[in-house]
Amino acid sequence: MYNDKKNSTSLDSSEKDSSRSSIAEEVSGLKIESIFPGVQIDKSVPIHYLIEALKLRKEYMDRIGSDKYSETTKCFLNNTYSQYASTFNVKQNTKAPPLAYHPPEPEPDHWGLKKSLPKYETKYIFKREGGITRIYDKNNELVKDFEKYYISKVKFLKDYEKMLSITSNGPLKTFCYRRLMYLQNKFQLYLLHNEQYELHEQKTSPHRDFYNVRKVDTHIHASSSMNQKHLLRFIKRKVKNDKNNTVLEKNGVKLTLGELFKRLKLDPYDLNVDMMDCHADKNTFHRFDTFNTKYNPLGVSDLKQIFMKYNNYVEGKYFAEILKEVFKDLEDSKYQHIEPRISIHGLKNNEWNKLATWAIKNDVWSTNAKFLIQIPRVYDEYKAVKEIDNFGHLLNNIFTPLFEVTNDPSVDPYLFKFLQQITGFDCVDDESKHEYINFDKYTPDPDNYTESDNPSYTYYMFYLYSNICMLNGLRRSRGLNTFSLRPHCGEAGAVNHLISGYLTAESIAHGLLLRKSAILQYLFYLTQMGIAMSPLSNNLLFVPYQRNPFPEFFMKGLNISLSTDDPLMFHFTREALMEEYSIAIQVWKLSPIDMCEIAKNSVHQSGFDDKIKMYWLGSNWKKEGIAGNDISRTNIPDSRISMRHELLVEELTNIFNNSNN
Amino acid sequence: MYNDKKNSTSLDSSEKDSSRSSIAEEVSGLKIESIFPGVQIDKSVPIHYLIEALKLRKEYMDRIGSDKYSETTKCFLNNTYSQYASTFNVKQNTKAPPLAYHPPEPEPDHWGLKKSLPKYETKYIFKREGGITRIYDKNNELVKDFEKYYISKVKFLKDYEKMLSITSNGPLKTFCYRRLMYLQNKFQLYLLHNEQYELHEQKTSPHRDFYNVRKVDTHIHASSSMNQKHLLRFIKRKVKNDKNNTVLEKNGVKLTLGELFKRLKLDPYDLNVDMMDCHADKNTFHRFDTFNTKYNPLGVSDLKQIFMKYNNYVEGKYFAEILKEVFKDLEDSKYQHIEPRISIHGLKNNEWNKLATWAIKNDVWSTNAKFLIQIPRVYDEYKAVKEIDNFGHLLNNIFTPLFEVTNDPSVDPYLFKFLQQITGFDCVDDESKHEYINFDKYTPDPDNYTESDNPSYTYYMFYLYSNICMLNGLRRSRGLNTFSLRPHCGEAGAVNHLISGYLTAESIAHGLLLRKSAILQYLFYLTQMGIAMSPLSNNLLFVPYQRNPFPEFFMKGLNISLSTDDPLMFHFTREALMEEYSIAIQVWKLSPIDMCEIAKNSVHQSGFDDKIKMYWLGSNWKKEGIAGNDISRTNIPDSRISMRHELLVEELTNIFNNSNN
Repeated sequence: MYNDKKNSTSLDSSEKDSSRSSIAEEVSGLKIESIFPGVQIDKSVPIHYLIEALKLRKEYMDRIGSDKYSETTKCFLNNTYSQYASTFNVKQNTKAPPLAYHPPEPEPDHWGLKKSLPKYETKYIFKREGGITRIYDKNNELVKDFEKYYISKVKFLKDYEKMLSITSNGPLKTFCYRRLMYLQNKFQLYLLHNEQYELHEQKTSPHRDFYNVRKVDTHIHASSSMNQKHLLRFIKRKVKNDKNNTVLEKNGVKLTLGELFKRLKLDPYDLNVDMMDCHADKNTFHRFDTFNTKYNPLGVSDLKQIFMKYNNYVEGKYFAEILKEVFKDLEDSKYQHIEPRISIHGLKNNEWNKLATWAIKNDVWSTNAKFLIQIPRVYDEYKAVKEIDNFGHLLNNIFTPLFEVTNDPSVDPYLFKFLQQITGFDCVDDESKHEYINFDKYTPDPDNYTESDNPSYTYYMFYLYSNICMLNGLRRSRGLNTFSLRPHCGEAGAVNHLISGYLTAESIAHGLLLRKSAILQYLFYLTQMGIAMSPLSNNLLFVPYQRNPFPEFFMKGLNISLSTDDPLMFHFTREALMEEYSIAIQVWKLSPIDMCEIAKNSVHQSGFDDKIKMYWLGSNWKKEGIAGNDISRTNIPDSRISMRHELLVEELTNIFNNSNN
Repeated sequence: MYNDKKNSTSLDSSEKDSSRSSIAEEVSGLKIESIFPGVQIDKSVPIHYLIEALKLRKEYMDRIGSDKYSETTKCFLNNTYSQYASTFNVKQNTKAPPLAYHPPEPEPDHWGLKKSLPKYETKYIFKREGGITRIYDKNNELVKDFEKYYISKVKFLKDYEKMLSITSNGPLKTFCYRRLMYLQNKFQLYLLHNEQYELHEQKTSPHRDFYNVRKVDTHIHASSSMNQKHLLRFIKRKVKNDKNNTVLEKNGVKLTLGELFKRLKLDPYDLNVDMMDCHADKNTFHRFDTFNTKYNPLGVSDLKQIFMKYNNYVEGKYFAEILKEVFKDLEDSKYQHIEPRISIHGLKNNEWNKLATWAIKNDVWSTNAKFLIQIPRVYDEYKAVKEIDNFGHLLNNIFTPLFEVTNDPSVDPYLFKFLQQITGFDCVDDESKHEYINFDKYTPDPDNYTESDNPSYTYYMFYLYSNICMLNGLRRSRGLNTFSLRPHCGEAGAVNHLISGYLTAESIAHGLLLRKSAILQYLFYLTQMGIAMSPLSNNLLFVPYQRNPFPEFFMKGLNISLSTDDPLMFHFTREALMEEYSIAIQVWKLSPIDMCEIAKNSVHQSGFDDKIKMYWLGSNWKKEGIAGNDISRTNIPDSRISMRHELLVEELTNIFNNSNN
């Protein structure tokens, strides 16, 4: 039971020099609810389902090579927690590597252009079979080493159906719902007891505060990463200075920027944000279709083409310039980072080359940014205009260049270098669209998928996942970086999307629909799966701000971060991420500790290099529990970390002790 | 009835060149609810009470010399509306004065230091009688010209009681409540009909958008006008660079900045925002007392003394510097302005001289700022420590220097110049404190008021108002600027504060309690009395954001603006006012037109010079109705302005036609 005496002394802020490590140790022994009787689980609850689900996700994450699965939960799965418990609860007396507070300056040659390309002796042959790339050696035999990364459609559908049956089990739903409510109540109880205490602990940490802890904008689209005023000013400046630049070729006629604006009958001086009309408003609520048209400045798709694309007549010159201005602002802010998404459509097989060439030639790079690739789920649109014949084409255009360049870097040196800066894949579109074609054993394989309707969300997820697994396996064998799958998931539409996400994704964006499935929400909690939430975006598209599940998820201990999605559409100030935080803080009355916890989650979820995160979060940052916490960098008191970890351990203990039901 | 045909064509955004003036004329004839039967007013409703209340406020505003009373309502009071109606509804074909979009650069000698002091032949003698300054000539006779500005306590109490009885009339409450609901519903109906139409109208206005319309932060305290990170950085910089500066004398010992921090056992590098602890949080809700202590950085009142006061050992050097940094940011933003409050306590009779000297010597001035003086309501605290004997002392210290310097500028040239830059008085403290002593005919006059308890809110208001009336009369006779009374009012505590405010104040800050009095709320609407609201401040002190009456007030058409109150306590980004707007926009889904309307209100309410406002809002800005609207500056479509004006006229017509009840 909590020691009241300590609580009262900790309230006395004059006692400033109580040693931190001793507090940590004592706090780690903190028990919140031992006055309550132990958990009694109804025999009808199939607890073992939870363990099966935990194992499934672990298997999927191991296959793709993600290390973001909760270490604690892994220990329970391996039945080794009791053995390692102390490593979570006790600070390691590491003579910490002499870390400065800030990581060292990056090399000027950040693309590694001066380094010679590696030459690999072994060359493989790739064949897409049933939509999934298989790796053969020169004798045309499957390479055994890579077969462990292969997952068949049959196996996936079996697992998916297993998850479907788990998540629809009635007694289990009630159990998970009650556990989640329990977690939420415990958090509140903890705060009532310890709020002053943990705030005091935070204050004793010198120099560090919310402003100078690292935060990553974990979900933001590159083409809308600037705010509306920024884009407006940029366009005005370009029309003024570059008016004689040819920017467009339309029906064989070349147009300069000046001519284009003359055709639009617009004087750049007259332009304003209202005309730009890029901002989402009341009329976008539940209207993803009108929302999408907002991407066109002035409602003119040519302007989107000129200023917000890398593949256009000016070879993405303007898009690169404005992105670099966004990066510059972030570098000035120093502690704010982003993970912008940039599109690969899968329409042509030279897209990757164009993108890599654009990025490297324009040097679109920053210490404060890490790119993800977003794959739009719009097969049906391409099919309708006959740009592609079948779904296999899409997969071919997306993946074949990646396998080829990994096999032999010399086929596209720029792409090879560029890929080393990419951390993962996103997959985006309106989830609320009806899915006419289910994914089941009767669904045609990609090469035979010639329907005019879009395949389902799960179909996309599976073929992205399975191909990335093979690609990661190949890349790992060559000592190269690998990719994560971090799709949009659970923003709207069917709850089942979250099952696909749970199996295949390292982390997801949105996750709003977790509200509707207590079991999935509980599994997300137990595996500490990352969720990049964007309440301001939701507010204008799917859920009013006040009804966003963010504060609940936070209390329950889900691994959530705050992200902006589209500053162009949603934000007003020059500091979009700070604006997003500010509103969350004000409306939900988050404390400075809550804010720092969310910031820490964002760093964990992000794809920045481990060696950078070590500088941002401390040398043991990968460890869960207080062993991994370095308050001098995270600004989170050990008491908070300890509480979170103990609650997780308690849940896992309950489950694993009662799994014989 | 609204012309459906026009509505549908206006939706077609291709029809861009429909002439604006014709739209305006047609829209001004727009009728929203003629399908409903006319208003039927129960005979039991004493409508004439409303007219009496309208007359009362007009009388009080005329006395103090405020021109912010609704012109439309004045016309109704004078029974001249039908005569002047067209001047509101038709754009004047003025060959507008050749106004550039931006006002001309201010003179370098903005304090007018190089101008010689005026010499006035007539000299007056001032005597405070019953707490109110009376003006005598050299023959010791009351000067008749100024007697019209005099209001006796008896007269005020009679009017106050009249208002009390009006605002507690049952049938009238119901009537006003229903009218207000009616206004709100009409606004919503208007939007449903015209939203696309007015947005289209707004888009056709070139160059102007929400970012470049002028906005004034109508309520902000100078000492907390910087955000917490700004103050922290400033203190760090000063401790580093000025460590050998003597900044404090305590018990005869002089301390340098370096020594002070040594005593506090603090290394400036270690300082962080958490230690600063200036931010309001969950624990300030309904705790104005803890809120007030947040003004002390690091909980150390010495730091407040050194960095946030003009009257200290360093003669306000640091406070001037940081304020000028705040001003610099505003000047860079160009379109954002503030009206910072700075304190006169009334403890010493040289306070005014110190303040004026500080302001002028440090040149604390900006085109983007206009100072107000705030009088804290803390007589009881001064009395408790025997700094003053009676309430009359306070009034003496506050007002005598002002009368004297207006009488003869040479007695304090700096003060004379300084006053020319001051626009009004605020009056501040926790309104929720219980008032032990009522203001009635038995309450002692100020010179005899020696109680240990604070006099009531109304007592403060009356003596401020009555003295400012006399002072304004005197200043007007000399061609000098006059002062407004713009107190904090209706933030918490008794609803009656709003009656005092209604009678004496030009505009108020907060006004939350208008929720609790439909009659007062309706009167505020009818007189278009300004309300500077600060929902983020309320959120941490008195009303959760989601329950703030701001959006309702806005729909009903009350004259509200958005203000920050204390960026040090409430805001996170570098752009506090934009942050305040952004949150309101997001949470309440305000449209770009709503935002511009609120910005326009803020300019109207502010004390910036009329000749400046002309540049900001257009040459006819004082006119109500579309006649006063210049969309090229306000960015508000005529349709919106017209709707607001018609609704006001409709209400007034109802009232004045039914006043025989």
